[in-house]
Amino acid sequence: MSEQLILHEYSESGNCYKVRLTAALVGKPIERREYDIMKGETRTAEFLAKVNSNGRIPVLQVGDRFIPESNAACYYIAGGSALIPTDPLDHADMLRWMFWEQYSHEPNIATLRFWIRSLGLDKLSDLQRLHMPTKRTAGNAALKLMDGHLADRQWLVGDSLSLADICLFAYTHVAGDAEFDLGRYPAVSAWIERIKACPRYIPLDA
Amino acid sequence: MSEQLILHEYSESGNCYKVRLTAALVGKPIERREYDIMKGETRTAEFLAKVNSNGRIPVLQVGDRFIPESNAACYYIAGGSALIPTDPLDHADMLRWMFWEQYSHEPNIATLRFWIRSLGLDKLSDLQRLHMPTKRTAGNAALKLMDGHLADRQWLVGDSLSLADICLFAYTHVAGDAEFDLGRYPAVSAWIERIKACPRYIPLDA
Repeated sequence: MSEQLILHEYSESGNCYKVRLTAALVGKPIERREYDIMKGETRTAEFLAKVNSNGRIPVLQVGDRFIPESNAACYYIAGGSALIPTDPLDHADMLRWMFWEQYSHEPNIATLRFWIRSLGLDKLSDLQRLHMPTKRTAGNAALKLMDGHLADRQWLVGDSLSLADICLFAYTHVAGDAEFDLGRYPAVSAWIERIKACPRYIPLDA
Repeated sequence: MSEQLILHEYSESGNCYKVRLTAALVGKPIERREYDIMKGETRTAEFLAKVNSNGRIPVLQVGDRFIPESNAACYYIAGGSALIPTDPLDHADMLRWMFWEQYSHEPNIATLRFWIRSLGLDKLSDLQRLHMPTKRTAGNAALKLMDGHLADRQWLVGDSLSLADICLFAYTHVAGDAEFDLGRYPAVSAWIERIKACPRYIPLDA
């Protein structure tokens, strides 16, 4: 496939990284366009009109089509590869983890990482500050659920690496940035090392 | 396909309804098992061990496999039907709306509906109460985004009904329960009527 893939992104975001990691693992080149979300560069009239009316990154551009939502972009890039199981039940199970990531993992772990690492605690609103303990508890519950699931298996779905692993790896492996202690989750920690050892793996800061 | 589909659910939940609606639209019978989430019936040791370690419904059971996450369950049921576009870009666009639903729509509109209609305002914690204005704003932003997108099209993706429409319809059409004024969103209101007119459509309380 020779179509050009352009990623509209903010490099530090785990949601953007998972798209780059997917592209690397399946061997597809991707052109990167950086936006500084701290300066509101994804909220300009031009960005909202052309790239994503939701004002968020990542957005994958394929020709004149724009695909927001990181996990949808990963799915497009990985289409036809071994990262997407062909068995319908395994495929549904993969999607289950991807939806769970966006609902029960990312809003807790990624948000705390953003608040602590990018925004800075002194910049938080009172409401955000009040919300931190809830997100801490929910983030640990998410890591515990993954740890239990991975206790007797190598990968989240079936017996090989899938998009479920990639999408959950993105914010899990940097959960320490959000002051989560990954040492409490040995099966998750072993799974992280397993992903890092995959051929063509690239780190977040590559 | 003659496999037995069992839906572990709480009927009033829009997330459970979208699974039933998908099954109805593709003509697949589904057996229903009701749990009272207000009485903690999805947090019992048996439910956590057997049905979903995340303690949530809906969960679709297919033989001895259990698929949590409503949108993953819908995808499994609709597999091979016209509800899932075969064009890879349209398919990615469908997933985009489904992930957006779980991240930007459901946590606002569905949560306010649950708090107002099921839990009751007097049962809310102080933190939940403080969070209501943020969820109100974000919920209206989600409806506005849909309204803009639907202003010049009949369906969210391509030119026919897809899972994106079904998954977003579930909580959008009952947004009034959460005190959102759908009259402010004429394109969304017209789209709701379009979905209700589809052959084999079933209402939430069927």
